[in-house]
Amino acid sequence: MLYLIGLGLGDAKDITVKGLEVVQRCSRVYLEAYTSILTVGKEALEEFYGKELIFADRETVEQDADIILKDAHLCDVAFLVVGDPFGATTHSDLVLRAVKLGVPYRVIHNASILNAVGCCGLQLYNFGETVSIVFWTEAWKPESFFDKITKNRKNGMHTLCLLDIKVKEQSLENLMRGKKIYEPPRYMSVNQAAEQLLAIVQNRRQEGEEPEVTENTVCVGLARVGAMDQKIASGTLQEMTTAELGGPLHSMIITGTLHPMEIDMLKLFALNKIIFENC
Amino acid sequence: MLYLIGLGLGDAKDITVKGLEVVQRCSRVYLEAYTSILTVGKEALEEFYGKELIFADRETVEQDADIILKDAHLCDVAFLVVGDPFGATTHSDLVLRAVKLGVPYRVIHNASILNAVGCCGLQLYNFGETVSIVFWTEAWKPESFFDKITKNRKNGMHTLCLLDIKVKEQSLENLMRGKKIYEPPRYMSVNQAAEQLLAIVQNRRQEGEEPEVTENTVCVGLARVGAMDQKIASGTLQEMTTAELGGPLHSMIITGTLHPMEIDMLKLFALNKIIFENC
Repeated sequence: MLYLIGLGLGDAKDITVKGLEVVQRCSRVYLEAYTSILTVGKEALEEFYGKELIFADRETVEQDADIILKDAHLCDVAFLVVGDPFGATTHSDLVLRAVKLGVPYRVIHNASILNAVGCCGLQLYNFGETVSIVFWTEAWKPESFFDKITKNRKNGMHTLCLLDIKVKEQSLENLMRGKKIYEPPRYMSVNQAAEQLLAIVQNRRQEGEEPEVTENTVCVGLARVGAMDQKIASGTLQEMTTAELGGPLHSMIITGTLHPMEIDMLKLFALNKIIFENC
Repeated sequence: MLYLIGLGLGDAKDITVKGLEVVQRCSRVYLEAYTSILTVGKEALEEFYGKELIFADRETVEQDADIILKDAHLCDVAFLVVGDPFGATTHSDLVLRAVKLGVPYRVIHNASILNAVGCCGLQLYNFGETVSIVFWTEAWKPESFFDKITKNRKNGMHTLCLLDIKVKEQSLENLMRGKKIYEPPRYMSVNQAAEQLLAIVQNRRQEGEEPEVTENTVCVGLARVGAMDQKIASGTLQEMTTAELGGPLHSMIITGTLHPMEIDMLKLFALNKIIFENC
């Protein structure tokens, strides 16, 4: 049996009791280590589970899934995913491969950022399409997420922005030389995401547009949701460029139409309560 | 401290390790018992937690929250919610009341139906606004959710439909006589939801509209998501009227634009694979 097990969002103890029992009886336990992170590392998980973990990087999962699934029709194999296995990143490809090989599978769900953002008080009902904001490079500055946010806002909906994670990336130089040397991991902060959004606002104005999202749009910055030291800050997009939220992971919400109870909740996390006076 | 703790979606063991530890040390533990259910009852939870639970019905939570919060600045009180505390139903009102009384609070997240539906293979990224489908009565047959589904579909987005739950409802007769006698709980099935949707499709046609959703729209019926005996069925809206999914809770998805990997996943759960041939 292949078990896809969500680890939740905080630390080792955010696994469910059911998930922990399964991990402890599995022959092999893989840790998916490229789409998200907990506030603790592999060693802390190993100590808590009493079990050795095998890192599964993107290459293994996407190209060598059969290694993970080896003998899984005879023994139990666990595949651990931060958040939920079908949350921000779906592992449908692994499930489809398992089914093709005749390996039965089961999912043990957990919180993911997609539902845990509800902790800021914005109703999950009122979220439109989720977007990803990627790190811009000199040569590549995509703006498509801005159009999705605009569409959501026009429909009155909030937008959850998942911020880029770069793990096990090679520099262009090392890539071209075929050297498997990896850059240190990078996690986009709310400050960086807000800067990129404001740059797009400027671009749009130069093109003669009146953008739906501006410096004054109410946003929510979230850091380490689900962890003991999580931080939430509400304020304008401009304020998000300087909000101090600490270490990764960060997410940001661009609000749509705010309901009275949502405003009351956002006030709890306000960088500056005055902006909610006229909401 | 007030702890809002998600129980996940299946049985007693779907609580997180962290959640369980908190429950076991709390002075009072309330079980919110009107917005969702697990596959096990209060007694099974009490046995597993080794702790007595106090039922909190809608009346208590919405009107007598101070009972729940009594002395919570001096001792630890847990408020247990099926799924996630900020999932389909937000408990913002309880949080705001706690803050007003000077009671600190903490949230322990878990899976909710809003992220666990990802198990059918539809990407959570591609969901639009969530809707609720309520039981129609002779006198009240709202259709507003149909317009939201239509809007989502026009934007290419899937729609998660949460199906009505009637717990602790009084008959009109008992209500008028002031008798606190409650009807047995009712949970809307996928079959019933599909019937109501098809009735709206007919209404719209009679009004000369060509509805965006029809008998042939691809849907997914889900029952007891996260439980050991969960069931998923994909097929047309017409097929959903007869899909046999067993006991509650049920949810239904009306698909938008389907991506190749999503189609491959839906085929695993197809009532009739032929409908996916032309997708």
